Amino acid sequence: MKIKVIVTPKKGVLDPQGKAIQQTLNSMNFIDVNEVRQGKYFEIETDIKNEKDAKKNVEEICKKLLANLVIEDYEII
Amino acid sequence: MKIKVIVTPKKGVLDPQGKAIQQTLNSMNFIDVNEVRQGKYFEIETDIKNEKDAKKNVEEICKKLLANLVIEDYEII
Repeated sequence: MKIKVIVTPKKGVLDPQGKAIQQTLNSMNFIDVNEVRQGKYFEIETDIKNEKDAKKNVEEICKKLLANLVIEDYEII
Repeated sequence: MKIKVIVTPKKGVLDPQGKAIQQTLNSMNFIDVNEVRQGKYFEIETDIKNEKDAKKNVEEICKKLLANLVIEDYEII
């Protein structure tokens, strides 16, 4: 089954890439945009059939590899 | 209001970064993982109050800046 994960910078952590996108958008006349935060998105295809087990496995994957928990949060969606 | 966007490589487009993550996971004993696809995630904070208008605006932003429609799909969530 396929499990989807979003990894985002924690609140308060600077996101220079998002800031650069926001400034670019403002200069492209998208003047209503006042903040952009960029994160990462992963689709993980696993052989585990049970949804609960698969999500538990993906949670471990997030903690060990995909997210840096000092500066990032993850969300399994 | 805040609009969330996911940008993913189109089906059939090679995703070497996702492949590298999958191989790393397998070598870390997550042997059930058989595919990983990596995409980008954006949170766009806009002054537009009306949800329909805001999403329309973000759709334009995706087409013009965030996604390369030749090789990527976007989804407003």
